[in-house]
Amino acid sequence: MGHGDPRGFVSVTTHAGIKDDAPDLVCVASETACAADGVFTRSRFAGPSVAISRAHVADGRARAVVTLSKNANVATGAAGEADARRVVEIVAEQLGVDETDVLIASTGVIGVPYPMERIVPALQKLRNAMGPADFEAAATGIMTTDTRPKVRRGEVGAARITGIAKGVGMIEPRMATLLAYFFTDAQLAPRELSRAFRGAVGRTFNRMSVDTDTSTSDTALILANGLAGPVDPADFASELERVARELVFDILGDGEGATKLIEVCVERARDEQQALVVGKAIVNSPLVKTAVHGADPNWGRVAMAIGKCEEYEDISPETTEIRMADVEVFPRPASEETLARIRKALEGDSVRIGVRLNAGSASATVWGCDLSPEYVRLNSEYTT
Amino acid sequence: MGHGDPRGFVSVTTHAGIKDDAPDLVCVASETACAADGVFTRSRFAGPSVAISRAHVADGRARAVVTLSKNANVATGAAGEADARRVVEIVAEQLGVDETDVLIASTGVIGVPYPMERIVPALQKLRNAMGPADFEAAATGIMTTDTRPKVRRGEVGAARITGIAKGVGMIEPRMATLLAYFFTDAQLAPRELSRAFRGAVGRTFNRMSVDTDTSTSDTALILANGLAGPVDPADFASELERVARELVFDILGDGEGATKLIEVCVERARDEQQALVVGKAIVNSPLVKTAVHGADPNWGRVAMAIGKCEEYEDISPETTEIRMADVEVFPRPASEETLARIRKALEGDSVRIGVRLNAGSASATVWGCDLSPEYVRLNSEYTT
Repeated sequence: MGHGDPRGFVSVTTHAGIKDDAPDLVCVASETACAADGVFTRSRFAGPSVAISRAHVADGRARAVVTLSKNANVATGAAGEADARRVVEIVAEQLGVDETDVLIASTGVIGVPYPMERIVPALQKLRNAMGPADFEAAATGIMTTDTRPKVRRGEVGAARITGIAKGVGMIEPRMATLLAYFFTDAQLAPRELSRAFRGAVGRTFNRMSVDTDTSTSDTALILANGLAGPVDPADFASELERVARELVFDILGDGEGATKLIEVCVERARDEQQALVVGKAIVNSPLVKTAVHGADPNWGRVAMAIGKCEEYEDISPETTEIRMADVEVFPRPASEETLARIRKALEGDSVRIGVRLNAGSASATVWGCDLSPEYVRLNSEYTT
Repeated sequence: MGHGDPRGFVSVTTHAGIKDDAPDLVCVASETACAADGVFTRSRFAGPSVAISRAHVADGRARAVVTLSKNANVATGAAGEADARRVVEIVAEQLGVDETDVLIASTGVIGVPYPMERIVPALQKLRNAMGPADFEAAATGIMTTDTRPKVRRGEVGAARITGIAKGVGMIEPRMATLLAYFFTDAQLAPRELSRAFRGAVGRTFNRMSVDTDTSTSDTALILANGLAGPVDPADFASELERVARELVFDILGDGEGATKLIEVCVERARDEQQALVVGKAIVNSPLVKTAVHGADPNWGRVAMAIGKCEEYEDISPETTEIRMADVEVFPRPASEETLARIRKALEGDSVRIGVRLNAGSASATVWGCDLSPEYVRLNSEYTT
């Protein structure tokens, strides 16, 4: 177990040969029973992994998470579902746990069957291969087009939280991100765990977008084995959210072709939903994203994106204020000198856009990244 | 009057010096009264041009359309509104028509006041500068980042229809496209004219997207002076829709950075709305757009985009069929040979994606274009 990781977890990261030479099979398990929760993509094309994990975590308990990467096992029909069930069955058998305590996730190419002739033999070696949890290895094993593993840690009293995530494209989670797992030895009532988990996911993963495309495989899970004893639920929730937010920054920093993080803070909105809709409209606008890429303080495009939220009659140019890099640009126009200063700030690797709608007192922050020629190149050249 | 244009229209295209040396002031007028209709952007940041034109066309009558290009006059406050009213006032005075019969549209940079000291003198020369309608010149004068003018013509009995349009970016019209004007000498009852116009716009301009960004200035107008006498309303509607569809292809063909037209046809949907939502999800997906750019038959991304329509519980992988370049790729997988054939087809300048939802009997076709590194370059380097 690495420094600062929760007690009682074991893992294995190995190579089954699903697509290439990279590690592609990861299993993380707890030595003891865990309270657990999960949130999943709402895609109508979600695959059997999502359906199985949703059913298995419904009772608030789990022991292990198995991940197959480089193949999503999506749009593979009844055979794909049988394959996923077979994976879970072997993992349960190897670990000596109930099948319903095994969760499964899978990301990668869509529409291609698992190479079960290579996966099954690899799974049958799991029991002997499990060792002290190595979250760096696990985070590496779940990657697809990611360029680096994403691991973040937190502490609450005597308890620890380790979160790992993957995903750099097809990222506009609607219920979760591509894959994000949190492991903790904190002891919490299931209701407290769920509240902290869903709050953290809602305010972090659900507020970011790389490219507006929602994956068929989005899965976020938390397993808490309680070995560190009870913790303060509020402290746990805030530490969990901090860890999740850092993973979000890791994901956006590794976003396909991304060179800059964009943070959009919408204030004085009618309600949180309005703040989110406006924030997402800005952070998802290709014209805003390209302006940020070019370090151009083109606030007119921010105004355009706000204007797209046509359902809100209380949004108006008369009451809206826009700031870029913490400087007001609308309605009070920035001087040439100020614009030059903003342009300088936009050249950094993190850009803040602020909007005040003056329609109420709610606020929300969302995150995204710029759109670069490299994003297009990566995704035009990635071949099925 | 060019060959095949409607009778009784006059125009002027000139250079007021709004931004650079390109023509930037266009006025097209009818010598006699016109039935008229207009549809406009629903942006919350729409400028005074949209507000004035909406009010002036509300009575179903108009005589002239004045367009100022390279400056949108959006987010310019009370001064911007006064400027727009002054433009209309001078045009009405020069043409000897009621102010309420003058429509105005303006596109270009947002948040910069009109250079009225140059615009007013140019407007004051309008009366003497008007000549027989030159729609090629007019279509050139309304361009901003367009690389070529867009003019299309149709005939219904003795009547003619000429449509002009501009727009290559910030194109996902919600009620109309950036700018599209139709002039005809057909004689129709106002209700028939509106029905034909709104039907055509709804099935053409409202079904295309370059980049999901909705302009603050979208305006589509039709002026019918009736000089060719009555026409069959159904024939007129179908000819108007044909002209509008050709303008849509012109716009997408000139879409920023675009190299390919994408046509998505969704069939057997629950209703037309569902077909449109699914079609737009596909045509707007950056991952689908980049796959098309790379001529990659990556139907998994089409499945992903369909899956994003999470509000429809009757959409399912079990019942969905996907075709690329008219060949089935899901659920019956295409052979390697067939995929090679599709890849070849995707290398052309027009790509068809077909989806059958098997949820009902409605269908809809939407249009878009690929996403290229050039789109990003153009929009990163376009400086305020």
